[in-house]
Amino acid sequence: MAYTIGIDYGTNSVRSIVVRCADGAEIGTSVFNYPSGDLGILLDPSDHNLARQHPGDYVAGLESSILQAISRGKQADSNFSTGKVIGLGVDTTGSSPIPVDENIHPLALQESWKGNLNAECWLWKDHTSVKEAATITELAREHRPQYVAKCGNTYSSEWFWSKIWHCLNVDPEVFDAAYSWVELCDWVPAILAGVTDPKAVKRGVCAAGHKALYAEDWDGLPDKEFLSMLDPKLAELKDRLYDKAYDASEISGNLCEAWANKLGLAAGIPIAIGEFDVHYGAIGAGVDEGVLVKVIGTSTCDCGVVKADKEVADVPGICGIVKGAILPGYFGIEAGQSAVGDIFAWYVERVLKGDSETHIRLTEEASHFKPGESGLLALDWNNGNRTILVDPLLSGLLIGQTLHTSQAEIYRALIEGTAFGARMILERLDEYGIPVNQVVCAGGIAEKNSMLMQIYADITGREMSISGSSQTCALGSAVSAAVVAGSGKGGYDDFKTAQQAMTRLKDETYKPDPEAQAVYNELFAEYKNLHDAFGGVGSTDLGAVMKNLLQIKEAARKG
Amino acid sequence: MAYTIGIDYGTNSVRSIVVRCADGAEIGTSVFNYPSGDLGILLDPSDHNLARQHPGDYVAGLESSILQAISRGKQADSNFSTGKVIGLGVDTTGSSPIPVDENIHPLALQESWKGNLNAECWLWKDHTSVKEAATITELAREHRPQYVAKCGNTYSSEWFWSKIWHCLNVDPEVFDAAYSWVELCDWVPAILAGVTDPKAVKRGVCAAGHKALYAEDWDGLPDKEFLSMLDPKLAELKDRLYDKAYDASEISGNLCEAWANKLGLAAGIPIAIGEFDVHYGAIGAGVDEGVLVKVIGTSTCDCGVVKADKEVADVPGICGIVKGAILPGYFGIEAGQSAVGDIFAWYVERVLKGDSETHIRLTEEASHFKPGESGLLALDWNNGNRTILVDPLLSGLLIGQTLHTSQAEIYRALIEGTAFGARMILERLDEYGIPVNQVVCAGGIAEKNSMLMQIYADITGREMSISGSSQTCALGSAVSAAVVAGSGKGGYDDFKTAQQAMTRLKDETYKPDPEAQAVYNELFAEYKNLHDAFGGVGSTDLGAVMKNLLQIKEAARKG
Repeated sequence: MAYTIGIDYGTNSVRSIVVRCADGAEIGTSVFNYPSGDLGILLDPSDHNLARQHPGDYVAGLESSILQAISRGKQADSNFSTGKVIGLGVDTTGSSPIPVDENIHPLALQESWKGNLNAECWLWKDHTSVKEAATITELAREHRPQYVAKCGNTYSSEWFWSKIWHCLNVDPEVFDAAYSWVELCDWVPAILAGVTDPKAVKRGVCAAGHKALYAEDWDGLPDKEFLSMLDPKLAELKDRLYDKAYDASEISGNLCEAWANKLGLAAGIPIAIGEFDVHYGAIGAGVDEGVLVKVIGTSTCDCGVVKADKEVADVPGICGIVKGAILPGYFGIEAGQSAVGDIFAWYVERVLKGDSETHIRLTEEASHFKPGESGLLALDWNNGNRTILVDPLLSGLLIGQTLHTSQAEIYRALIEGTAFGARMILERLDEYGIPVNQVVCAGGIAEKNSMLMQIYADITGREMSISGSSQTCALGSAVSAAVVAGSGKGGYDDFKTAQQAMTRLKDETYKPDPEAQAVYNELFAEYKNLHDAFGGVGSTDLGAVMKNLLQIKEAARKG
Repeated sequence: MAYTIGIDYGTNSVRSIVVRCADGAEIGTSVFNYPSGDLGILLDPSDHNLARQHPGDYVAGLESSILQAISRGKQADSNFSTGKVIGLGVDTTGSSPIPVDENIHPLALQESWKGNLNAECWLWKDHTSVKEAATITELAREHRPQYVAKCGNTYSSEWFWSKIWHCLNVDPEVFDAAYSWVELCDWVPAILAGVTDPKAVKRGVCAAGHKALYAEDWDGLPDKEFLSMLDPKLAELKDRLYDKAYDASEISGNLCEAWANKLGLAAGIPIAIGEFDVHYGAIGAGVDEGVLVKVIGTSTCDCGVVKADKEVADVPGICGIVKGAILPGYFGIEAGQSAVGDIFAWYVERVLKGDSETHIRLTEEASHFKPGESGLLALDWNNGNRTILVDPLLSGLLIGQTLHTSQAEIYRALIEGTAFGARMILERLDEYGIPVNQVVCAGGIAEKNSMLMQIYADITGREMSISGSSQTCALGSAVSAAVVAGSGKGGYDDFKTAQQAMTRLKDETYKPDPEAQAVYNELFAEYKNLHDAFGGVGSTDLGAVMKNLLQIKEAARKG
């Protein structure tokens, strides 16, 4: 009987789970909420684009959550003992780069940088570097089109180089003090492995891929000539970063003595290459060719894979197509929506000043409306549009309000807006020949909100399956750990076998209702009009939108 | 010492005031809330366009409110006695036609029609007859362009013929049972005067004007050939309506014995011609050539006058230009916004589930924001657009939401939206040479919400004066009563003299702040883009709207 531990660093907390390799049973789980900032996020009241995180929280959460998951595992499964743990896997948010010194010690943990937000970890959702991202996009389109061809021709403010360059622009002292920068998903495995040389940190291709503009095609990171166009100091930094990145067939390292002692685990067990949460989440949800995994949370990430021996078209507006980013031997395809659960949370908490009870009440009320009945339509861009417009400077829109529009109608319209956004992505993949035969949803919202899932099925016209685990990302990390440990130790020799044994879907699925689908097709046409008009895709005549919504509404009320 | 009584029928209540003719002092006031329906409005849960009112409430409120106003007047002013009341004036909502029998007795007060909403008064804001209005518009544009030339080339679902025709279409039994139809503002004076013959009811040109398509130019109501195009039964109805309508220089009748006894007033005192609330409101706020009166309430009505000896251009999108509709000897010019206070109430009560305290809190919070700082922009069309698009099938729109947008920011954006709508009207009047040298605002919102008034000044770039009376409509009715009574009885011989003596403005005004004005000019450009695009005025490229809002927001936050 072998076990692995999956460690999942989310936006507000880190979760560890102990998983039985034989059947994927999650025998012990523990969540550690980051103590710093606002729900773990360091904010700047004067700039709502800023989002940082304190690396000290990562270290504290690593020890605490693993120890507690182990202790719970022992209670739940009498066969379990720490000696049976054959490997560790880590996933984190990203791109979340951390400025570190020569010993990969984060600047933020050093007294001299205390209180400086630029010395902390730059959380994925930090959008302070919008201008840098735009310039990188512009320069790459002109001088290195291949750099952005696989990420929708647009480089994001959420990514590695934008953030580091912004740091150089706004706080050169921090930039100069940082010997190197390490992605959180590479940093945690390195800490567990006791690595202290930044150049020795084994980087995952998942984070390196389009986020750091890494590709084998151009021998790794961007060339120095290009980086010098941004700033010569970035070209210098390249030498202190890395030359090669690895997919999940490689181990990141082996558990060092110090951490083995802290955790009561065997020193030397393998640690899987770190990946982003949704990438391991996709593995935990059973991603395979033809399967699109949607991890629906505060935002939504869509992950698919295509065998690496095929030609994959550049898909405009798709965030990234990177070889090995998810599964070894496959192109990983990533798309997403910048805000989903965050939009519902914004409406309930910030606008209505409600709480989790409000979500439950509004979901119940909204479930009684028929499609189109509210006459409302929303664009799901409160946090910009990641796919397919790749434009963080877009914002939300609600149309069709009357004096009778209710609280719950708006709630439902916001949900529908995110489903229309999801359909745009599916249609784009379809258009460029990336097959999606099955959609698997994961994440708390997919699991808990059956009204939302039915709306997603009705709006996209596709059956929606739900991942069997409610800890899909951590489970994926545990799967990866089982693969790096190998069958000799009680793990597996490849991902397919490991996934078959360790992951499953729920029996219940959501099937599109043809009547609802018909109405939503009409609403989607209007969504697309607004999407294209406000997204700058093309100028559309919007003079009929409000009247069309009214007609759909009247028909829905009669029918 | 002479006094008059002004009686003001609003949407939810009737208010009577006793006014001293010498100086306009309001010595006694009483409000009677209509007991029927939802805040006095009879609704149909299956059709939110429907809004009716029970005529029984009008009669009960007439007696009760006058008696109580008199009693309070006696307490407040020892000089006052009922013998000193020299006249009565009545204003009401409109167009609010009532189906009546041969004795002008409302069908709704007859046992056989009890419970039938079509037999009640069709309240101004009833929008069930959208289709009839569209057909009238179409037929008039083709066959009788002069009929709609002075009301923005569009006939409204809020008006007389749309409503009566809709009754005929949906409930022919009620239509057939109705001997005639009388506007509420003509019906109340007739009741006070003891008139029982529908043909003898003296109709005001204010209600008849564009609402019933009445004009001297075509000898009164629409010709029978035109009415037959709608329905031959409407042509037959014409004979049972009226041939002539009068302006406020005429009396409607004299107080009959029965009502004189009920009220303790002298029989035979004159009753002024009935007008719509905002028209008498305009008089009460000091309307004159060059003065635009804005009565800001649930909706906003804009009233101006131009001397009748001048040529007045047809102004596209302006609801009505009718000779004598407000002041005798002047064209009355009417424009408006279908929802203003109603939008704020919708947001607070229906979306936020708040109350009057919430309005106060949000106003306080919103007052701290700088123009443009929220990045939001709203179209004020939750109840359609009255001026200048004249389209009840438009709806609300909110754009620019992020995950940080607050409750109060949305509240302020809704207020700003109504101010942009107000500016559209001012610009349209300007464009067609109707001078506006002074803007006087009246109504509860204008009086109480100084933040809103400052926003109106900043957005329109015009100084805003406030009417001295908080009961402007009732005061205007009392002024009209003083004029029909005449100087011989202690009243006045003309409106100008009466207005000078009886009405006044508050000392405090709201002046535009140049800095705020500059930002709002930028926002107005975006408002106009959305207005034109969604209003069907022309196709505009909206691809930059969200980014422009973001730039304005960033500039506002920095500056």
